[in-house]
Amino acid sequence: MKHISFDDIEQMEQRVRARLINSLSGFKSANLVATVSEDGHNNLAIISSCFHLGASPALMGMVIRPDSVPRDTLSNIEQMGCYTINHVSADIYRQAHQTSARYAAEVSEFDKVGLSAEFVDGIEAPFVAQSQLKFSLELREVLPLAINGTTLVIGEITSIFVADSALKADGYVDIEALASVAVSGLDSYHQTRRLARLSYAKPDKALVTLPVDGH
Amino acid sequence: MKHISFDDIEQMEQRVRARLINSLSGFKSANLVATVSEDGHNNLAIISSCFHLGASPALMGMVIRPDSVPRDTLSNIEQMGCYTINHVSADIYRQAHQTSARYAAEVSEFDKVGLSAEFVDGIEAPFVAQSQLKFSLELREVLPLAINGTTLVIGEITSIFVADSALKADGYVDIEALASVAVSGLDSYHQTRRLARLSYAKPDKALVTLPVDGH
Repeated sequence: MKHISFDDIEQMEQRVRARLINSLSGFKSANLVATVSEDGHNNLAIISSCFHLGASPALMGMVIRPDSVPRDTLSNIEQMGCYTINHVSADIYRQAHQTSARYAAEVSEFDKVGLSAEFVDGIEAPFVAQSQLKFSLELREVLPLAINGTTLVIGEITSIFVADSALKADGYVDIEALASVAVSGLDSYHQTRRLARLSYAKPDKALVTLPVDGH
Repeated sequence: MKHISFDDIEQMEQRVRARLINSLSGFKSANLVATVSEDGHNNLAIISSCFHLGASPALMGMVIRPDSVPRDTLSNIEQMGCYTINHVSADIYRQAHQTSARYAAEVSEFDKVGLSAEFVDGIEAPFVAQSQLKFSLELREVLPLAINGTTLVIGEITSIFVADSALKADGYVDIEALASVAVSGLDSYHQTRRLARLSYAKPDKALVTLPVDGH
């Protein structure tokens, strides 16, 4: 095993350090955050920092970095109070990655990367037509984190669209069947192969492998 | 596509809703958080809510739920000010899942599930011997989130141990080669298969597939 000390981390070249530290948390989700500005410009940004915050109410968090492209994303969310999150699947991961290029605010990443905006009655933010699992959110909180200048954005899920076949009777969504991808580090994309669904763990009881549909 | 409305979500049976909402963020990291209490009891808890917060300083966040097992984890972290995070790989994912059973505070999950605690000079919290990527953290912030009673714990990475072969010259860690697993929903574990590492995206420039070692 290689040992990397605190001093080693401190002295690392900035990009090397960014790649290393970004690898440590493990596999990350890959989502496209879609927004629209008050003056009608659509925006699309890949984000690997979405995380489950709670089921009741249904809350999702995401971290926005001060120096990253999703600045338009954050200002659109603050302007409109709503946004959508769209899973990145294996057939669109390159287009999704390309949204991280620094396009001007008035440019639609949808057009530039070749994804289609799709609108649903009553939801102002666009969805990604190609995505097989997507949902709209209403902004609940914008929490600036003083420790490093990032911003934690918390939204409540208001509407979900999911390919029928992937939604199981017990509520589980088989995102592997949708070819949703996982991210490692800053730039590596991965498909998955299920090991197992496991039963609820109890002391002194052996785990059981569950069928994918939970029954 | 199936449409699940806000009212549908509200009216869902609680466990079904938990499985559904936990599936939405996409693939999650699988980590074991290891801690020790002031009176010397080791604790080990699987957590799928670790997320990258920043590289400089090297910060990691994790969400602790009020009703979840890692309550011992949180009180140990607050007592001692330090903890370790250890990747869950395919060879230990069942033991890792078993740590989510509700063992008493004085019981060591290490012993119960068959993983080994390993200590490093100068770091009070134990590591998981079997893990091929692990790091120690010092507690920086405990942020209660009023919106749903969860707690955001922020730590700074102080020391990293990684299998030599997985650390690439450009800083990327090939966590797929370490067989680190991804989680979907509440209970599904997945291995990965790389699609590609992609070059830094720029407007009007085509993406290039990078070799895994970044060169």
